[in-house]
Amino acid sequence: MSSAVQAERIGFIGLGIMGQSMAGHILAAGYEVHVFSRTKEKAEALLEAGAVWHDTPASLARVCTIVITMVGYPHDVEAVYLGDDGLVPNMAPGGLVIDMTTSQPALARRIHAQAAERGIAALDAPVSGGDVGARNATLAIMVGGDEAAYLRALPLFQVMGKSIALLGGAGAGQHTKMVNQIVIAGTIVGVAEALSYGAHAGLDLEKVLGVIGGGAAGGFQLNVLGKRMSEGDFAPGFFVHHFLKDMGIAASEAEAMGLDLRGLQTALHQFGRFAEQGGRECGTQGIFTLYQQQGQGAGPSADGDE
Amino acid sequence: MSSAVQAERIGFIGLGIMGQSMAGHILAAGYEVHVFSRTKEKAEALLEAGAVWHDTPASLARVCTIVITMVGYPHDVEAVYLGDDGLVPNMAPGGLVIDMTTSQPALARRIHAQAAERGIAALDAPVSGGDVGARNATLAIMVGGDEAAYLRALPLFQVMGKSIALLGGAGAGQHTKMVNQIVIAGTIVGVAEALSYGAHAGLDLEKVLGVIGGGAAGGFQLNVLGKRMSEGDFAPGFFVHHFLKDMGIAASEAEAMGLDLRGLQTALHQFGRFAEQGGRECGTQGIFTLYQQQGQGAGPSADGDE
Repeated sequence: MSSAVQAERIGFIGLGIMGQSMAGHILAAGYEVHVFSRTKEKAEALLEAGAVWHDTPASLARVCTIVITMVGYPHDVEAVYLGDDGLVPNMAPGGLVIDMTTSQPALARRIHAQAAERGIAALDAPVSGGDVGARNATLAIMVGGDEAAYLRALPLFQVMGKSIALLGGAGAGQHTKMVNQIVIAGTIVGVAEALSYGAHAGLDLEKVLGVIGGGAAGGFQLNVLGKRMSEGDFAPGFFVHHFLKDMGIAASEAEAMGLDLRGLQTALHQFGRFAEQGGRECGTQGIFTLYQQQGQGAGPSADGDE
Repeated sequence: MSSAVQAERIGFIGLGIMGQSMAGHILAAGYEVHVFSRTKEKAEALLEAGAVWHDTPASLARVCTIVITMVGYPHDVEAVYLGDDGLVPNMAPGGLVIDMTTSQPALARRIHAQAAERGIAALDAPVSGGDVGARNATLAIMVGGDEAAYLRALPLFQVMGKSIALLGGAGAGQHTKMVNQIVIAGTIVGVAEALSYGAHAGLDLEKVLGVIGGGAAGGFQLNVLGKRMSEGDFAPGFFVHHFLKDMGIAASEAEAMGLDLRGLQTALHQFGRFAEQGGRECGTQGIFTLYQQQGQGAGPSADGDE
């Protein structure tokens, strides 16, 4: 790593399961790291490892040259970037902000435009690969924005991820993440319906997965999440409430494009029903139980209403 | 291969793209092979290689100890097995019949029962892996029936396939194939909707596939058929009209089990619309064009009404 790169002072906002791992990799790579999170306890391990705590995004923004955010919902992104106490009004010109939250493409473009007015570069860079990908630094990172900003951020992306690409201008990273989530929406519903069918037909799901997992139905959703369904393991993984957020963004973007995506609508409907039944805090594979109830009356193994 | 195994005289009925490759592997393994197909031209290469032609299933059944069928629709299966000129009335007791067509579980059980009355063993053994899997002898073979019959057939399955399993009694092979097809139904719709979204959002689909193909959305449908969508290659592969048959069987079995599979119904509806627009002879990845029309008015690249 060159000393020029390590001269960047990195801010990291949002220290959930993903953010903690990602900020940890940046710290381990020798960067000066400043952190803020709504819950200070989540920063403890990072602070022990040398990160610097800030009480507000504004305070963090004033001392950092690059700030990365990994928060929850688009309204969180909007507050952290555009609020009075947020990044865009408080960061020095010449800075770079990178939102790695899965959020709205239109909001990414708005942040890019408002940041540019203050001489700040902005990238949207949502990720795929989950907690395991974050921990192992094998995330896929889908980036939208200007090439100069992308090249400046690339050394940071490389300590967090494996498959990294600039897909286009502001918002293109978020759009690519939506493509990813629409594939997953159809697939996870297909896997859940298929395995529920198999269970109702009296098949041994472990044997079924063994024979079909290597064929044309195979992939991460069947081979990893299908296996968890067959074992009754509905722990997250990827939270149902986050998946609902993502599908909601995709559906509203699709509608704005005049696209009628029936498969996505079906997945949104089914996951909405599952959430109403207490599945919000389950992993997405918990949707299996929605189908299994039709024969057996079994509910999800985890419930909660965040 | 033991001489006891090769002492079996094999009949093969149905010489489409799949059947020709599969019968060819059996012939190449040193078995005596007898063939029948509705179109004699399709047998030519096999006859040149030493297979023996028959003008009717009955004539073939009388000289064979094991008969394999790979035909089109359940009504073809029923005629070949249970018709006056079919296998069950004309084969000698002690024989074994193996239906590798994707067909109805209930029909498989009916054939099993009627064959048993005449002292004939029956297996249902549909496959996954398509033309490529048939050619390379890498099919997944999902078997239902009695264990003794399975063990007798296993050497034949091993010259045609790679992943082979006995899943249960008569019909269990067909049920397992339905599990496979329900996964694919959800997944291919998800892939088509996602890539159409990406295209409408102005993304470079090749780049998108490069970054998301190795993640949680990845699998055969995205990585192989998604790539064909992005290239505008809608040739079969797996015919839309065969997929509609399979999904129709799955939907009616699910209904009989009291299962409400909304994702499967959505896929059936979308593929039905695509077929009405001339997509029956396309590969399943052609469903992409149904979505692309919403923005561009482009029709499928192949049409036909078999």
